[in-house]
Amino acid sequence: MRAWGNVFDRVMDAVAMLGQNIKKTVEDWARFSEEADKLTRVFLSAEHRACADAVMAAMGAAGMQARVDAIGNVVGRYEGLTSDAPVLLTGSHIDTVRDAGAYDGNLGVALPVACIAELNAGGRRLPFAIEVIAFGDEEGVRFPSTLSGSRTIAGTFDPAALALTDADGTSMAEALLDFGCDPHAIGSEARDPSKVAAFIEVHIEQGPVLESEELPVGVVTAINGASRFGITVDGMAGHAGTVPMQLRRDALAGASEMALAIERRGAADPGLVATVGRFDAQPGAVNVIPGRVEFTLDIRAPDDGLRERAIAEIQTTLEEIAARRGLMSTIQKLYEENAAACDEGLMAGLEASIERQSIRPLRLPSGAGHDAMALASLCPMSMLFVRCGAGISHNPLESITAEDADVAARVFLDFLEHFDPAAVSGQT
Amino acid sequence: MRAWGNVFDRVMDAVAMLGQNIKKTVEDWARFSEEADKLTRVFLSAEHRACADAVMAAMGAAGMQARVDAIGNVVGRYEGLTSDAPVLLTGSHIDTVRDAGAYDGNLGVALPVACIAELNAGGRRLPFAIEVIAFGDEEGVRFPSTLSGSRTIAGTFDPAALALTDADGTSMAEALLDFGCDPHAIGSEARDPSKVAAFIEVHIEQGPVLESEELPVGVVTAINGASRFGITVDGMAGHAGTVPMQLRRDALAGASEMALAIERRGAADPGLVATVGRFDAQPGAVNVIPGRVEFTLDIRAPDDGLRERAIAEIQTTLEEIAARRGLMSTIQKLYEENAAACDEGLMAGLEASIERQSIRPLRLPSGAGHDAMALASLCPMSMLFVRCGAGISHNPLESITAEDADVAARVFLDFLEHFDPAAVSGQT
Repeated sequence: MRAWGNVFDRVMDAVAMLGQNIKKTVEDWARFSEEADKLTRVFLSAEHRACADAVMAAMGAAGMQARVDAIGNVVGRYEGLTSDAPVLLTGSHIDTVRDAGAYDGNLGVALPVACIAELNAGGRRLPFAIEVIAFGDEEGVRFPSTLSGSRTIAGTFDPAALALTDADGTSMAEALLDFGCDPHAIGSEARDPSKVAAFIEVHIEQGPVLESEELPVGVVTAINGASRFGITVDGMAGHAGTVPMQLRRDALAGASEMALAIERRGAADPGLVATVGRFDAQPGAVNVIPGRVEFTLDIRAPDDGLRERAIAEIQTTLEEIAARRGLMSTIQKLYEENAAACDEGLMAGLEASIERQSIRPLRLPSGAGHDAMALASLCPMSMLFVRCGAGISHNPLESITAEDADVAARVFLDFLEHFDPAAVSGQT
Repeated sequence: MRAWGNVFDRVMDAVAMLGQNIKKTVEDWARFSEEADKLTRVFLSAEHRACADAVMAAMGAAGMQARVDAIGNVVGRYEGLTSDAPVLLTGSHIDTVRDAGAYDGNLGVALPVACIAELNAGGRRLPFAIEVIAFGDEEGVRFPSTLSGSRTIAGTFDPAALALTDADGTSMAEALLDFGCDPHAIGSEARDPSKVAAFIEVHIEQGPVLESEELPVGVVTAINGASRFGITVDGMAGHAGTVPMQLRRDALAGASEMALAIERRGAADPGLVATVGRFDAQPGAVNVIPGRVEFTLDIRAPDDGLRERAIAEIQTTLEEIAARRGLMSTIQKLYEENAAACDEGLMAGLEASIERQSIRPLRLPSGAGHDAMALASLCPMSMLFVRCGAGISHNPLESITAEDADVAARVFLDFLEHFDPAAVSGQT
């Protein structure tokens, strides 16, 4: 019995070996942190530089030429059969939020590098070059900027961002120089669209859909467009004991009714999500009727028209609630990003690779933003989502299994095997 | 024309002279504050002592014998026709909240002193003595105690409170010694119920009912019983973009539904009020579904049974909402005080005095707690409410008009004129 057990364990180990290697790489990189007991690695920090060096080393070991570009991206290139072959871009970010999980972003760098190491070990060259890019500024933690690395590649980086400063007053331009980059060369990093076949990003789902569907991977249909609003509801503060219910203009009761209306509207269309995340009642004392509530609305959808219709309806509803209750409500847009649709040919290719692993292919939108969003203006793009535990992300509890990492790597290798740069649909 | 104007002004001045004097006294006392630009006068502070001295001076000028008792109350006595006459107690508190209004409490001391000054000026003695008490600890700001002064008079002061400490670590016993009081004598300040005819407290309404009814004064029917609860709603935090609406366990949406249910139940019975005053959503980020909400419920009613039934129904409703949404809710009682009913004979007497001023008498419950609540265990009690601007209290914007103060003083004088200690009903 023991012998059988050992054989079984060895077989399982062998099955998930690629996935285990990928997990180990990501966990190694997670030690590059500004805090000993948690993962925090912000753009252009010393830890970011140390991690970039480790990524370059891994790329070198996988047979790639690696460099740090002018915006601090690590770019590793695995040549194709010919030097003028088109290039397939892949990658994700290696900067993190504060007290982050290990897999967000980093998985999308470690996994393709591991797959290319497999190709390289077998001496395989493909009819296209592959570049793995470890983007440096996706999370936007250090500077009030985001997607600086992927926008540079797409040619949409705004040089005005170089003047943005961090909490210590250091500008992005100064931080780039410290990192060993030449900010003046950023413009030259923009890729020529005619030479780029596509961009594929591997990323943990950061949500619970794959887990609830019992699937290790899924194909992303679009990166949802998102709008954020700050809403202020003004009523009249008063003594909780002395103001009869019918004489109240209770900002909290009104805002509660608004939050429920937002939830109801969010649930009314598949793909739409609407969230009240912050909710501050003032003055916030047990015996005082709140006179003011400030809350936020975050609303996302894979389709911009759907999102815009929902926003308009929510605005009307909030105004009706405020008017009926004798409250004043104001709504202010904080942020807006349109949806980025994935390429139909790339999605079909990923689905075919998933099916060849005997797994049911599932399409789902991405509720979170990703570097792929910026690349969408350069070339056809799609994403491969990997199941994560309980949908938890941006948290030390973020997790994936070696088996799922392994499945994702085999899907990615299969996709490379079958990818035809000439057959990208260009349809979204 | 000018001559007529002057005459008219003089007539109006004369009409409201008593009210103007009362307002001026209260405003003079408001200068006894620990802060130059706002009113903060906490129990047993140097400012409280200075104010007590000013109150004693006013009482002396009104023909009263004044002293500071063992708990720091200022007690001024105006003798009756005979030395063994029963005593009518009146008064209110002179401690304040931080950044207080001038009239809360203080009006109920200045107004009876001004009325007694009128009696004294006319050489009038009544068939009962009158004691005006300026209580020292109604607001409970300095120590985690409340009603220490009025409970001492009622004989219900708990000596354990003497060991309570303020933010600087000073005990109430030490503070009393500093104030010039003998904590050991507190027990001897308890009044003999057989010698006390009644307690009447004059107080600003601290609510909007009299203003909305266009009445300067009203008769209080009961000091509402109150219960306070802390409620915690636990769901599952998640990414606002990646968790579909149907997979959410959104603590904020659940708590919002609970707040609306509380409002609805509060409005379902006249006299009942129910308030969600604090509402903290965690983690409180624009792009995170809240995993936990903590909120408070303050519920009050003139009838304890009504309040208890409403609490039970609200608890059931909250549990139903939590269960339906896959949330956990816990409710913890923070505070409870039963209602104190006012004496029918005293209410009728106050109503008659109001009618004799050609004013419609209105009965209303007191939603706020008052010293009269503690006195209710000693003797029959009621309260005369005075209209305040916009129902605002515990705020520098707290206001009354000289005309309303004048009406209240004339009602109070009329009440003294007609009060028969033997005819107090003892019914509530």
